[in-house]
Amino acid sequence: MSSTTGNIFKVTTWGESHGKTVGVVVDGVPSGIALDENIVQAFLDRRKPGASAYATKRAEADTVEICSGVFEGYTTGTPIEMHVTNNDQISKNYDNLREVFRPSHADYGFFKKYGIRDHRGGGRSSGRETLGRVAAGAVAATALARLGIKFLTYTKSIGSISIPNLDYDEIARCLSENSNSLGIPHEDTYKSASAYLDNLMREKNSAGGVAECVVTGVKAGFGSPVFDKLDARLANAVFSIGAVKAVEIGNGIAAARGTGAENNDAFVSKGGEVSKKSNNSGGIIGGITDGTPVIIRAAFKPTPSIASEQDTVNKDGGNTTICIEGRHDPVIVPRALVVVESMAAVVLLDEILVGLSSRIENVKTIYNRF
Amino acid sequence: MSSTTGNIFKVTTWGESHGKTVGVVVDGVPSGIALDENIVQAFLDRRKPGASAYATKRAEADTVEICSGVFEGYTTGTPIEMHVTNNDQISKNYDNLREVFRPSHADYGFFKKYGIRDHRGGGRSSGRETLGRVAAGAVAATALARLGIKFLTYTKSIGSISIPNLDYDEIARCLSENSNSLGIPHEDTYKSASAYLDNLMREKNSAGGVAECVVTGVKAGFGSPVFDKLDARLANAVFSIGAVKAVEIGNGIAAARGTGAENNDAFVSKGGEVSKKSNNSGGIIGGITDGTPVIIRAAFKPTPSIASEQDTVNKDGGNTTICIEGRHDPVIVPRALVVVESMAAVVLLDEILVGLSSRIENVKTIYNRF
Amino acid sequence: MSSTTGNIFKVTTWGESHGKTVGVVVDGVPSGIALDENIVQAFLDRRKPGASAYATKRAEADTVEICSGVFEGYTTGTPIEMHVTNNDQISKNYDNLREVFRPSHADYGFFKKYGIRDHRGGGRSSGRETLGRVAAGAVAATALARLGIKFLTYTKSIGSISIPNLDYDEIARCLSENSNSLGIPHEDTYKSASAYLDNLMREKNSAGGVAECVVTGVKAGFGSPVFDKLDARLANAVFSIGAVKAVEIGNGIAAARGTGAENNDAFVSKGGEVSKKSNNSGGIIGGITDGTPVIIRAAFKPTPSIASEQDTVNKDGGNTTICIEGRHDPVIVPRALVVVESMAAVVLLDEILVGLSSRIENVKTIYNRF
Amino acid sequence: MSSTTGNIFKVTTWGESHGKTVGVVVDGVPSGIALDENIVQAFLDRRKPGASAYATKRAEADTVEICSGVFEGYTTGTPIEMHVTNNDQISKNYDNLREVFRPSHADYGFFKKYGIRDHRGGGRSSGRETLGRVAAGAVAATALARLGIKFLTYTKSIGSISIPNLDYDEIARCLSENSNSLGIPHEDTYKSASAYLDNLMREKNSAGGVAECVVTGVKAGFGSPVFDKLDARLANAVFSIGAVKAVEIGNGIAAARGTGAENNDAFVSKGGEVSKKSNNSGGIIGGITDGTPVIIRAAFKPTPSIASEQDTVNKDGGNTTICIEGRHDPVIVPRALVVVESMAAVVLLDEILVGLSSRIENVKTIYNRF
Repeated sequence: MSSTTGNIFKVTTWGESHGKTVGVVVDGVPSGIALDENIVQAFLDRRKPGASAYATKRAEADTVEICSGVFEGYTTGTPIEMHVTNNDQISKNYDNLREVFRPSHADYGFFKKYGIRDHRGGGRSSGRETLGRVAAGAVAATALARLGIKFLTYTKSIGSISIPNLDYDEIARCLSENSNSLGIPHEDTYKSASAYLDNLMREKNSAGGVAECVVTGVKAGFGSPVFDKLDARLANAVFSIGAVKAVEIGNGIAAARGTGAENNDAFVSKGGEVSKKSNNSGGIIGGITDGTPVIIRAAFKPTPSIASEQDTVNKDGGNTTICIEGRHDPVIVPRALVVVESMAAVVLLDEILVGLSSRIENVKTIYNRF
Repeated sequence: MSSTTGNIFKVTTWGESHGKTVGVVVDGVPSGIALDENIVQAFLDRRKPGASAYATKRAEADTVEICSGVFEGYTTGTPIEMHVTNNDQISKNYDNLREVFRPSHADYGFFKKYGIRDHRGGGRSSGRETLGRVAAGAVAATALARLGIKFLTYTKSIGSISIPNLDYDEIARCLSENSNSLGIPHEDTYKSASAYLDNLMREKNSAGGVAECVVTGVKAGFGSPVFDKLDARLANAVFSIGAVKAVEIGNGIAAARGTGAENNDAFVSKGGEVSKKSNNSGGIIGGITDGTPVIIRAAFKPTPSIASEQDTVNKDGGNTTICIEGRHDPVIVPRALVVVESMAAVVLLDEILVGLSSRIENVKTIYNRF
Repeated sequence: MSSTTGNIFKVTTWGESHGKTVGVVVDGVPSGIALDENIVQAFLDRRKPGASAYATKRAEADTVEICSGVFEGYTTGTPIEMHVTNNDQISKNYDNLREVFRPSHADYGFFKKYGIRDHRGGGRSSGRETLGRVAAGAVAATALARLGIKFLTYTKSIGSISIPNLDYDEIARCLSENSNSLGIPHEDTYKSASAYLDNLMREKNSAGGVAECVVTGVKAGFGSPVFDKLDARLANAVFSIGAVKAVEIGNGIAAARGTGAENNDAFVSKGGEVSKKSNNSGGIIGGITDGTPVIIRAAFKPTPSIASEQDTVNKDGGNTTICIEGRHDPVIVPRALVVVESMAAVVLLDEILVGLSSRIENVKTIYNRF
Repeated sequence: MSSTTGNIFKVTTWGESHGKTVGVVVDGVPSGIALDENIVQAFLDRRKPGASAYATKRAEADTVEICSGVFEGYTTGTPIEMHVTNNDQISKNYDNLREVFRPSHADYGFFKKYGIRDHRGGGRSSGRETLGRVAAGAVAATALARLGIKFLTYTKSIGSISIPNLDYDEIARCLSENSNSLGIPHEDTYKSASAYLDNLMREKNSAGGVAECVVTGVKAGFGSPVFDKLDARLANAVFSIGAVKAVEIGNGIAAARGTGAENNDAFVSKGGEVSKKSNNSGGIIGGITDGTPVIIRAAFKPTPSIASEQDTVNKDGGNTTICIEGRHDPVIVPRALVVVESMAAVVLLDEILVGLSSRIENVKTIYNRF
């Protein structure tokens, strides 16, 4: 539990913000997948700090090292260890956080649960914990690419500033052509959001926002009924990212305001191929994919680390105030995009591997190959 | 996976809409809890069909039978089997659904996954599957009550019609005094929602809505970091209920639009007791409870079974149309309230049991009692 | 945990000796397997009480009922519920066991763990709990038969009386031609063992023995490295049967006395087919099958229920004596044979299903079929 | 699965013989346990190669590094990463093993499962994989020591040479006073075994043997009924160590030859304290501890790596021969003792943590402390 997730494709992370390393063990990876550190590094670089005006200035190279599970360029089926060394771990004095709980941070919860905590930079609850997830996501996405599955993940809104309705091709084009530091696939929206963030930063404040992840190329028939519905597992995975306060699939909350006649996705057959006239379901019905794009949205709260003064309490139960100085992202979403994508990839691959055994004919086909 | 969930408190359900029984095995229940069929029945009655104008007319007594794990009125620590017999299972002819997939239902996904399906009444994807969950929820809630933990679950909105801001005492009072068939804790809102539903039913249409569950009496320090964050597990559990398209914790999606200064919950200490000036976090920080009420919201899509004509396809890939006649709830939320509450109870109890071992001193205390 | 086992093919049992029912939920069963109650009943009949002079006289029909997961004669991929009703549950007065712990029974352990126990007939620790396992084993064995995998399970020894070295064909022939009540595939050994048991029964004593299970038709490449080695999982599964005190794979304990030169199984290739000159490994190397028969042996202690007087203690810690009258098998092995086979089948099927994803090429083949 | 084990106390290992590192992530460790690298190193040193004439000469310091989960000398409750760097990884040419399968090694199984393998030094199936297990065992044993639980693990036999019957105090005294390279707690037996091994080494042969682990200080009431019986979990854990071919609990296989009157352990009460007149059960009844020492025995096959010529096959299915030169332990047992102890500690701690929730009164006691 807790630091391990998955049924067949199993991910286990470790590490604190200011520990020696942050890393992951990924088990249950099919053998024969071409993999090396460059592939993983490309994923990690997407969440790298210091890459923009809107990200923490912590100076970390975040260079990944793979210590097992890959041999002569291919996965062997044994667990893959990947980690990043925390170089910048001693550069800052966190003594002021030793005795005090930052509002809307994990500090108080950890203290109540364990009675002890590594207070430096958030310890285990630091965003650096996601490095392990992203490395795992890189492995999962590489496997999924072998099946023709692709991800498109972007910032849908920051504060109240949202992108207009765009089709996925436009989004993909904009992201590749005008890649910006906020992950917003629309130039005008990017400018508005930048101005909004610049202003908040001046006010020692921070913003929330929404990430959207679209998965294409997923065939119908994957996911599980009941407790492991694909949407339920995606919700779990994305909600396990710090600062997420809501997860939607397809049209999400809007579905609750509509009617059945509006919301139902009519099926239509063209040349024997089943498709849908709309995709309000976000590619999942009854917990199982229907062959249309899987659409996941995550709402992130504003970065709780703000430099303006806040009321809080200390370990002895006394009232005090805190100003959280230092390097903090004014908005979490842009750097979290690859984390959302990674968690989605991890879950989707696991469900596909589980799904190989759904029919006895498929079991027999593979068994007879051995 | 799939039909089993939980780490220590483990829930396994079985059953199809028109199978012989629908039921559950609940394992890992602490011994010594007073339990009998009346306690469980009271939970099941809250989701009973036929109880209102706004619920399916299927005639089921849904009388629970407990076959193991309870001895002389107390739980023994061994698995508790509970089931309900499907009496009404042969009353309807479902042959028209054998070859065709209902839009926005689970039919197509199941068929693609398994190549075979029990088409009668939705089979395994029927709402009747939740009977097992609710029986498990009754056990969990009974255990949690021993710890002083209580649930308040109600309909927050139907379509665009929402209750006003109310404090939990008002909600509780209204629910107990004016209990209505829609679970709406506000008389005027109930009337508007009724009129809205009456109209939709005349139009052979259906509505969506939002359920809210508030859990009080939860001490700080329960839940887990990383993948098993309490909010992530609650999201998973609630999202695993059919028709849910979004889950929010605390202020949820609204958090994404606010700023850090607005959204952060300042801590305050009164007489050594730590509390918060606001509860935007919904009682959970860093995946762990903070001692304030846990707030969960679930958005349900409109009932996909509508009597008006819809386009769809059949098993052979041909285009066709369907009108789903028969007994169907025009809105899912009211009968789903107890399911949301049950899933929340199941997860919360499991996390509390897991949390007993968070500190070596607590481990030692219990060990020395043996 | 505890009452659930398996990764993909998941088995959950419930029930006490004198509860209403004893049963099982089997999840993760591939769809499309022909299954009905007759198939399962044939397995259950192999452990049926009252079938011989050497088995308890408890009068139970043990008729299985399937309540879900099978539709029109085929598995659907959804959980299969199977149970047996305890008809004979009130026929005996167990009040004398309420306050006293039977030596070498589970009573004392259960009491210390839970502080409460269903003392009637052993409660949850009764051999009747294995009914659920055997029903699950019937499902697993039916699936495995589709892959060409077969089981041969027999009594290898009772007390110090063992069968001679026989090849598997002789054993299979003897079992089918001269099926006896002790499951001993050798006529002379059966006669000696019968005489030995007759004598012990007169002395109000009981015997131990060894069961052997040989699985043929298993291809090489199934099982997992490290913690889920196939032999480790088989050991776990078989050791989880009451009264088992040792499990051996292949030559087992004898291997510890031999040398490497004697014990190693040389590989040999005939026409491209790899085989081994000996099978000391029992078909498993490094936790993975090698294509030769899997050989499992379980040592059962003597039935602890004996009618002669024994020293023991009661709930209040006082010294007392007990004579366990009533219907008890004088030796556990014969009726446990099908339980051993069932547990082996459950584990083997699960490992085969997990193993479908071991190579990306196999993943791709199945994925592209969807 | 596979490389992760445990319910609450979860252990995940990674690493190949000639990969960069071999290590482990241990999750679910209670906070507040004093822990540092010296404690873990002391465990690792017990399995260190090169320490005796009877162990491989591979030159590895096996110095452990802890990268997370410990803060200021105490466990924090978050995952503990521990690893050892493989310094000696490139010193040997393994090209001769690339195409050929060593008899009774894991090579062939891995190849059939994954189609690819790291052939250097056994890759994932190397004994070096147990470094992670032992590090985890050090953590578990440290936690168990806080509860008064101790381990005594020794070589019971090598080949046919066994120690005489000794009581545990004698064994402990002999091990501490005359610690020898074979872990045999009896001077004369050690001499005979040494002579036996010297002779086998001259003949390019190897020996098997039996390890015994006795756990004292375990209170009654821990372990679980049904599938997670403590003996079943111990059997699984110990059988997951390479080369183990049998596991016994208590009197093990001997139980199968005895009678109920001989084998049953009579209870006796002295001053209110319940004990047993014998301990044939090995401290476990019905899968749950009974307060007497837990006794586990593992039979190890002879080291399969022998320098004399053996028949085998290559990857292309051709017949060939192999002589396995190089550094290999002539008997596995002595260095495996700490591995057996570690696996026992890991399982026992996990079951104790799970067992904290067995009674609602205990749940309430801890909950009210938060």
